[in-house]
Amino acid sequence: MSNAETIAKNARQAFEASQLVPASERDTALSAIREALSERRADVLAANKADMDAARPLVEAGKLSASLFSRLDLSKPGKYDAMLQGITDVAALPLPTGVVTFAKALGPELALHRVTCPVGVLLVIFEARPEVVVNIAALAIKSGNAAILKGGKESVHTATLLSSIIADALARTQIPGTFVQTVSTRSEIAALLAQDRYIDLVMPRGGNELVSSIKNQTRIPVMGHADGICAVYLDASADEAKAVRIAVESKIDYMAACNAAETLLVHDSVVDTVWPKVADALAAADVSLRCDARTLSALAGRPASARAQPSSEADYDTEFLGPEIAVRAVPSTAAAIQHINAHSSHHTDAIVTEDEGSMSAWARGLDSANCFINASTRFADGTRYGLGTEVGISTGKTHARGPVGLDGLVIYKYVLRSTKGDGSVIADHEKGQGYTHTDLPRDKAPF
Amino acid sequence: MSNAETIAKNARQAFEASQLVPASERDTALSAIREALSERRADVLAANKADMDAARPLVEAGKLSASLFSRLDLSKPGKYDAMLQGITDVAALPLPTGVVTFAKALGPELALHRVTCPVGVLLVIFEARPEVVVNIAALAIKSGNAAILKGGKESVHTATLLSSIIADALARTQIPGTFVQTVSTRSEIAALLAQDRYIDLVMPRGGNELVSSIKNQTRIPVMGHADGICAVYLDASADEAKAVRIAVESKIDYMAACNAAETLLVHDSVVDTVWPKVADALAAADVSLRCDARTLSALAGRPASARAQPSSEADYDTEFLGPEIAVRAVPSTAAAIQHINAHSSHHTDAIVTEDEGSMSAWARGLDSANCFINASTRFADGTRYGLGTEVGISTGKTHARGPVGLDGLVIYKYVLRSTKGDGSVIADHEKGQGYTHTDLPRDKAPF
Repeated sequence: MSNAETIAKNARQAFEASQLVPASERDTALSAIREALSERRADVLAANKADMDAARPLVEAGKLSASLFSRLDLSKPGKYDAMLQGITDVAALPLPTGVVTFAKALGPELALHRVTCPVGVLLVIFEARPEVVVNIAALAIKSGNAAILKGGKESVHTATLLSSIIADALARTQIPGTFVQTVSTRSEIAALLAQDRYIDLVMPRGGNELVSSIKNQTRIPVMGHADGICAVYLDASADEAKAVRIAVESKIDYMAACNAAETLLVHDSVVDTVWPKVADALAAADVSLRCDARTLSALAGRPASARAQPSSEADYDTEFLGPEIAVRAVPSTAAAIQHINAHSSHHTDAIVTEDEGSMSAWARGLDSANCFINASTRFADGTRYGLGTEVGISTGKTHARGPVGLDGLVIYKYVLRSTKGDGSVIADHEKGQGYTHTDLPRDKAPF
Repeated sequence: MSNAETIAKNARQAFEASQLVPASERDTALSAIREALSERRADVLAANKADMDAARPLVEAGKLSASLFSRLDLSKPGKYDAMLQGITDVAALPLPTGVVTFAKALGPELALHRVTCPVGVLLVIFEARPEVVVNIAALAIKSGNAAILKGGKESVHTATLLSSIIADALARTQIPGTFVQTVSTRSEIAALLAQDRYIDLVMPRGGNELVSSIKNQTRIPVMGHADGICAVYLDASADEAKAVRIAVESKIDYMAACNAAETLLVHDSVVDTVWPKVADALAAADVSLRCDARTLSALAGRPASARAQPSSEADYDTEFLGPEIAVRAVPSTAAAIQHINAHSSHHTDAIVTEDEGSMSAWARGLDSANCFINASTRFADGTRYGLGTEVGISTGKTHARGPVGLDGLVIYKYVLRSTKGDGSVIADHEKGQGYTHTDLPRDKAPF
């Protein structure tokens, strides 16, 4: 048996064993993990220092970015405590499992309940931020899913130690120690992606290339987003103050975020009125404007013209993640929606409008996870939405979409229980009494 | 552009255009289709006769099964009317889209709604039952999804005409005629499975081989079940009457069904008491018993022994779809659950027991879509569950599981609307007022 198969099989067995453990034990496990991580702080920071020391020459040689190096550092003031607090916060969230979402009596002595339950075994692949190991472990445990974690290779010492502390803490509870496992080499990922018999869901967090390559390699369902090409559209009735505030924040607040704007669409009728004000504000924030002919000519003689240049077709399909934005004039809200459905990544798109008809068309016609009206694209986030936490953002069209909270880590099963004296068979109903299909209370799972 | 790409792109465009059409138009379209199919009955039955005439020599040559030939026949008494009635029944179901499943105010002038919406474009591959074209078209239209349909090649004349009648009827409504399209050759399927830019969900209905081959060919999410290896487990406390009724119906009621039992597990302590009675009843129904040593020896000298033989390991992983059942003794409920989690297809498994602890372990520990207690596996069906209709049965662990009704054809989007005078940006909240996250009424979608 290959190493990957052993890891996947162990995860599956840990998941199955955990299903017979009362759900309250998950919060006990989270407490135990918090306590263990608190006690072992010095050891974890020493391991983190080893990762930092190994990474420093790479940064100096230009092989690793300064921002990645910075994210690797667990010794920054408050970071370790925030990581510990995150565990307590997850423990305090409502349990996503054991929720009855459908309940009917099929007959007087035959009750059907649809009850939420964990998906099973998760494979989560993420960047070199060591605290993510703890965050994902907490979310997996709270939702009852076993997890196999693979962080960026630069954080290997920290991640390995964190994972072993988590396993030790779990082993002191009724939840198996192999409920959360960590793998450290990239070669193991390919082998794990073949374990569709044991792994139920893959969640890659990272760039477009990572996500696409994973989708091509596996039969296991993949949840995540490949990229975030988000748009802001200024409608014919766009209010100028709203347009400036929303376009500017959507673009510049955090340019590396997946919910930052990369495209600005402008209705023909406001190209000479609202657009130049927005352009000046973006230019003042050092944003380069890649414009089509119509929006470019409207800037002649204005401050923004210094930062404006003609766009190429490829600009409208580009996730800049930096101080550039692609701009295009469109003749109608319908044309804006068509452009976005064809070019955006179905993540988050905002309209600035005063027109109810345009709002309605936007909310219904736009095939995006987050359809915003007079609000910045930056609101697309599980914490801002009040979901409690966020596992990631999905641009897929099945299972979960948009910011994914704990609810996105569960599925359901149907539990049918007969209390009839001689048991229930369909013949009782189909050659006899029929089906009642009356609603039952949903306040409590049957087991 | 290839033919498959054209079809997929047309479906996508039809889907996007349909999103701006009021949902009530879907019921209008269903009425129009029913009416058109009613008017064209003679033409459809003539096309069906052409399919039957072409299939008859294949049956005589042993190249096509008699049961497939029988399912092809749309002229059987009542069948055409049942197909028409099915459209009316689907139209009468509650709309699965536009349902608010989460609604919060993020601030006094900022409302977030999560609203159900269609998945998008479906690719449905099914057997040679011509009425399925109409049934799937009705479900797709009701749920707002565009659909590309591929039926068995034996029904090509009927399916093509049904599809053209549906397209003509749609063209008289606001829903585009290309909302439902049919393809007729198998080679188009491979090309369609590559159109992940346009197609959102693939639903294969058919055998294990079809489903597995499709999963290997595509990046598009696949919903369905590869096979149905269902088990009945007789626990230590199993009631004899329940055991006999449930085991017999689960096995023999409809042996070709995916929810028929293929495996029988028997607790050691009832191998010499309940099991022989069940064995005699199964044998009396001409079922062959493939037994492990323990369950085989318990039948010595009984009527059932004539139909009993030693099992092979492979029998416990086999979907017989006929009069055979694999039988094994197990030492505990936990061992039964382990066997099923390892060998079954996670479809439907039933326990016969009087013990609450075993019931609870079954409902929680069994990783199956349908966990049944003292009830026949044959209850696993969308109509029997009261879901209104059934698109198929899913053994996947994401999106939808078990019998899938119209709810399984929707996903959701988040609609965020600001009514603040200068629009909403996150800075208003994160450098100011914070987030309120108060619940909003869920009775109505915002648009």
